[in-house]
Amino acid sequence: MKSKAAVAFKAGEPLQIVEIDVEDPKAGEVLVKILYTSVCHTDAYTLSGDDPEGVFPAVLGHEGAGVVVAVGEGVTSVEPGDHVIPLYTPECGKCKFCLSGKTNLCSAIRETQGKGLMPDGTTRFSYNGEPIYHYMGTSTFSEYTVVSEISLVKVEDNNVPLDKVCLFGCGVTTGIGAVHNTAKVEEGAVTAVFGLGAIGLAVIQGLAQAKASRIIAIDMNDGKAELAKKMGATDFINPSKFDKPIQEVIVEMTEGGVDYSFECIGNVEVMRSALECCHKGWGESIIIGVAAGGKEIHTRPFQLVTGRVWKGSAFGGVKGRTELPGMIEDFMNGKIDLDSFITHHLDFMDINEAFDLLHKGESIRTILTYEK
Amino acid sequence: MKSKAAVAFKAGEPLQIVEIDVEDPKAGEVLVKILYTSVCHTDAYTLSGDDPEGVFPAVLGHEGAGVVVAVGEGVTSVEPGDHVIPLYTPECGKCKFCLSGKTNLCSAIRETQGKGLMPDGTTRFSYNGEPIYHYMGTSTFSEYTVVSEISLVKVEDNNVPLDKVCLFGCGVTTGIGAVHNTAKVEEGAVTAVFGLGAIGLAVIQGLAQAKASRIIAIDMNDGKAELAKKMGATDFINPSKFDKPIQEVIVEMTEGGVDYSFECIGNVEVMRSALECCHKGWGESIIIGVAAGGKEIHTRPFQLVTGRVWKGSAFGGVKGRTELPGMIEDFMNGKIDLDSFITHHLDFMDINEAFDLLHKGESIRTILTYEK
Repeated sequence: MKSKAAVAFKAGEPLQIVEIDVEDPKAGEVLVKILYTSVCHTDAYTLSGDDPEGVFPAVLGHEGAGVVVAVGEGVTSVEPGDHVIPLYTPECGKCKFCLSGKTNLCSAIRETQGKGLMPDGTTRFSYNGEPIYHYMGTSTFSEYTVVSEISLVKVEDNNVPLDKVCLFGCGVTTGIGAVHNTAKVEEGAVTAVFGLGAIGLAVIQGLAQAKASRIIAIDMNDGKAELAKKMGATDFINPSKFDKPIQEVIVEMTEGGVDYSFECIGNVEVMRSALECCHKGWGESIIIGVAAGGKEIHTRPFQLVTGRVWKGSAFGGVKGRTELPGMIEDFMNGKIDLDSFITHHLDFMDINEAFDLLHKGESIRTILTYEK
Repeated sequence: MKSKAAVAFKAGEPLQIVEIDVEDPKAGEVLVKILYTSVCHTDAYTLSGDDPEGVFPAVLGHEGAGVVVAVGEGVTSVEPGDHVIPLYTPECGKCKFCLSGKTNLCSAIRETQGKGLMPDGTTRFSYNGEPIYHYMGTSTFSEYTVVSEISLVKVEDNNVPLDKVCLFGCGVTTGIGAVHNTAKVEEGAVTAVFGLGAIGLAVIQGLAQAKASRIIAIDMNDGKAELAKKMGATDFINPSKFDKPIQEVIVEMTEGGVDYSFECIGNVEVMRSALECCHKGWGESIIIGVAAGGKEIHTRPFQLVTGRVWKGSAFGGVKGRTELPGMIEDFMNGKIDLDSFITHHLDFMDINEAFDLLHKGESIRTILTYEK
């Protein structure tokens, strides 16, 4: 079938809206009509060409929501008409990782997904007869996309607004999940959040849910302070306003350092600050941001020997098919605020404008709507 | 009073056995007659001059055992005649760290201890009227030493052989503690231990106690294999015998990596290998070795984002006054093997030979005996 799609033909160039061909889903696959998608920094990173795993041409996009159109052989957990959110971290429930009880990093289709292919090693997208690669197993920048059954979570209640819960496809889940699943923040904790994009703001919401006693929000852009405080931050600091390393500022503010810190940017120097602002003896720092290819974190080992812990989190440690239904319920019950993340709405045709808004730091999330 | 002592007058030079003056213990302090001491790599590191915090002239030594000779004002937990082990990690039981329940890094006297001073900012040692610095709050290379009351654990049973349990002053406690307190290794775990000095061998004992299913011992010296296996190692590998990074070798041997790894050398490149040989999704690496001043650990943040955890351990996370009595009991009941660590015995006068044996990799631990 034909589908409107924003194709990344070449690194560093704007997406082009074209009509691509989408094949029927094969065994274990599902054809989804995407209704809404948003744009995340990871899409921008891959489009920039800096992502060493980026392949082109590709259909990017990994934060979306839609409706099942058709299912391939053997698919039993969803059927046409079901509302779904694609998951870039699938959950097969059967692999060593899913069965470990220790991680959400399902390995079932990781190898092909990382190469922009479906599990059988081929693509379902083509343009003028030439294959177009998938992206993160989701490719939500095509109106019709094919994803693995294990990469879909069903939204049971059709009244749930897909133009909001599409945000659970990445940033919001990542931030909230990192607080509860990776850091396991306890009531009263003193915390710091570096970088106030969607993930950082979601971390703040998670920390507020966990009843952290102090939530120090850090960003170079003062314009982020208001929203951070609305989400629950107790302090806002801008590193450019101090003449010493921000970790020293935070250690002084907190009489020794924070219990938990979160890096939500992908900058390896900030990752160091985030670790070193932790309290000696027990502070834990969680890396969430995705650093550019080849960049390395570094610090003196003494930081760890004296009790700090360095961790990371992917998709917030959340097992999508198991845990997202609960998060959707939290949203419906007012326990998660998605509206505040949505700063802009655009037609899907204007997707390059959404990238511009993200680059300029003007948007948190832009919801793109496919033509009805 | 006069005391025989091995003084480090200058970095990089052998210790000199001289008779120093030792003042009476002040309030909260205890005069201890050291009966046995051993030599640890940390003493050698400070003596080399590479330790940026090293001060000279000083009385080094932090693995020892002895008898209380006199107590200063207000000391209630020990009295003359008590058998004791000095602790370089004290336990005051009252500071923010002791009360946290999360760390053994008591802060009560940290600042002065780091500068080679007693808590009042002065020294109890002098030679020809010039002050000589303390070291790690213990200075076991003097027959008579003064330590804080909070830096002593009492050995309740006078039948406990001090020439063996002196090893609990550092290496053995550090290694066994790191397994149980820092990593919290569970039965069946797959593990790797880098560096088979006293600490690495003690880690292996701890892992055997924890019933790890696989204990891979790693050292450049094949001569360490036998003792490692006696302690409980299931495999021994020598990185110099492979033409690829040892982390890749271990990942292949273990079908994905280890659950826990321990760096017991102090080499930042080995710390990277130890992290990267951990299993994606959950592997934890514990840094125990003390790196040279200014050296930094580094890795790609992707290692942490995909679920590995980087930690460190000082004195094995052990609260000395609370936990060492239990470890001494374990030794008396045959649950901890100290004898295998003791490869040499020498008179205290031959202390420089003990350093030589350590540098050459010929000894694990040499027990030095003060003249009876």
